[in-house]
Amino acid sequence: MSTNRKVVLASRPEGAPVPANFRLERAPMPVIAEGEILVRMRAISMEPAIRGWLDDNDKNYFEPIAIGGTMRALSMGQVVESRLDGYAPGDFVRGLFGWEDYTVANADTVLLQKIDVSPDMPITYYVGVLGGSGQTAIVGLDRIGRAKAGDTVAISAAVGAVGHVAVQYARHIGCRVVGVVGGPEKARVARELGCDAVVDYKSAASMEAAIREAAPEGIDVYFDGVGGEMLDAMLNNMKTFGRVICCGMIAGYNDSDNPPPLYNAWQIVARELELKGFLLYSYAEFVPAALATCIDGLRDGWLRTIEHKRIGLAHAGALFCELMSGRTLGKAVLEMDLSEAD
Amino acid sequence: MSTNRKVVLASRPEGAPVPANFRLERAPMPVIAEGEILVRMRAISMEPAIRGWLDDNDKNYFEPIAIGGTMRALSMGQVVESRLDGYAPGDFVRGLFGWEDYTVANADTVLLQKIDVSPDMPITYYVGVLGGSGQTAIVGLDRIGRAKAGDTVAISAAVGAVGHVAVQYARHIGCRVVGVVGGPEKARVARELGCDAVVDYKSAASMEAAIREAAPEGIDVYFDGVGGEMLDAMLNNMKTFGRVICCGMIAGYNDSDNPPPLYNAWQIVARELELKGFLLYSYAEFVPAALATCIDGLRDGWLRTIEHKRIGLAHAGALFCELMSGRTLGKAVLEMDLSEAD
Repeated sequence: MSTNRKVVLASRPEGAPVPANFRLERAPMPVIAEGEILVRMRAISMEPAIRGWLDDNDKNYFEPIAIGGTMRALSMGQVVESRLDGYAPGDFVRGLFGWEDYTVANADTVLLQKIDVSPDMPITYYVGVLGGSGQTAIVGLDRIGRAKAGDTVAISAAVGAVGHVAVQYARHIGCRVVGVVGGPEKARVARELGCDAVVDYKSAASMEAAIREAAPEGIDVYFDGVGGEMLDAMLNNMKTFGRVICCGMIAGYNDSDNPPPLYNAWQIVARELELKGFLLYSYAEFVPAALATCIDGLRDGWLRTIEHKRIGLAHAGALFCELMSGRTLGKAVLEMDLSEAD
Repeated sequence: MSTNRKVVLASRPEGAPVPANFRLERAPMPVIAEGEILVRMRAISMEPAIRGWLDDNDKNYFEPIAIGGTMRALSMGQVVESRLDGYAPGDFVRGLFGWEDYTVANADTVLLQKIDVSPDMPITYYVGVLGGSGQTAIVGLDRIGRAKAGDTVAISAAVGAVGHVAVQYARHIGCRVVGVVGGPEKARVARELGCDAVVDYKSAASMEAAIREAAPEGIDVYFDGVGGEMLDAMLNNMKTFGRVICCGMIAGYNDSDNPPPLYNAWQIVARELELKGFLLYSYAEFVPAALATCIDGLRDGWLRTIEHKRIGLAHAGALFCELMSGRTLGKAVLEMDLSEAD
């Protein structure tokens, strides 16, 4: 255990990232100082937000990653050495860590948190169904959408990291679920997950008509991670007093200077809708219960999670590129191979 | 008291209505049947919604008014003869009545309600500050906007029927108020009403910049009856967790087939905003308290109401045309001249 490996940014992507934008490097094993912990990385969460850190501009929450700098992501790891109060070897920790075999964290590390890992749960789940994605699904439906038995709930990206949990939870609490997906394979999976109806936006001649056909009585709750045209089509299909959980507007992410316009805002008044922005970190008090719900669901069997998983640090760059191509189903996650680099 | 007078639709307006679209006619005094009341009209509320009933299409809540048909509006009157249980001569009633000296109503008349008129309050107030406009202002700010002391509240059409009440109530409960108006005269009145800052959208080079200058710390609550460009500019000026009371989107009323697009919907997510459609009739349980608040305000002096008032049925058509020109301040109301037609 004398060397570390890490994935660095080799070049900035133009548009969609390609594997050549990333490079695996050897590096000396880090030595921790007072107030730090040394963490063996276990699972790395691949998320679209990372794409923003690869551009050299000031439009993001975090500073851009430098050329040659170590890639980072929300990740799970296990403490191997600690000089930080409250952390001991063996503790599982989650936080914004580097894409590397061993990483160093301290009390200022973004989102650093000790995690009580259940022995029957795979470690990768803690950056997916038992992490932000699962909790976003549960808290969003419960607290923002106020979804209840009998409601018709529409879910964008219904087989995505958040969506596939939301579909199953909505079904579990007695909702009728309309899944929105792109393409026949995703439509098939959405039906397997329990969607009562599926709208494939890639094949629908009119999204508005396709939603109407899927939910002739209208939509009570729309879980929206997409915005743009899909949101517009949904606004014309909402029931009076319908709620829209606005947790992302991906339709505008690739060209933030030219966001897609919304034409049907008048429906907010006419149908007395509620559109509410939702970012999980503002609802920390509801996270423990949401986590417990997901653990229960996995154990009881009403919830299953889909992972798009690769094993081994060398695949991290390629996995991120797959995610950004829009072809992955469920949660994209890299699991570290513990036989490597030790 | 042997003849009645009424205002009928002489011709359908093209675009903005003109006085020649309306005609005052003599008619026989109505004779009521069992289950009906005869009502002496006292005050007629002029509202933009009436414009929709003048077009011969099916886009409205109510059927269009026929050529030669009696104009109608939310109005106050006094029962002079009753064959309807629960109604007695002398009772004040509000409902969707005809523009006429005497009108006939029954249990099915839209919005028919007995009104307890305070002797110190002018009858016209009951279709304005003590009617839907005042109650929309209070319930909207309290229940939808959850405005509280210390909040910065922006109000569109700040010297309009709803807006001028909202401005004064927001001040009364300790908010900082930014009024949005069109033109220097309205700006002057908005300041007189107590606005801490005024944005004149007709003279502002950039609405977004003008709002930022008026509220550098951002907006907590936006009372929006306008939609379109103004809402877009406001979205970029809202504080995190800001609330938008969506009670009208007039910007799109004149051309409902081509609504003005909204470009900044992404801010709903980024700023975790809440946009909520609001129509007063869905909040009936809060109306009595809102009415009491307005009566208290008028008596205590923290609230004064602006009426754009004409007296005499013959002026009804011209008054409606004034309202639709956008030049009126406060509540446009026709008061009946009781010396006429008796």
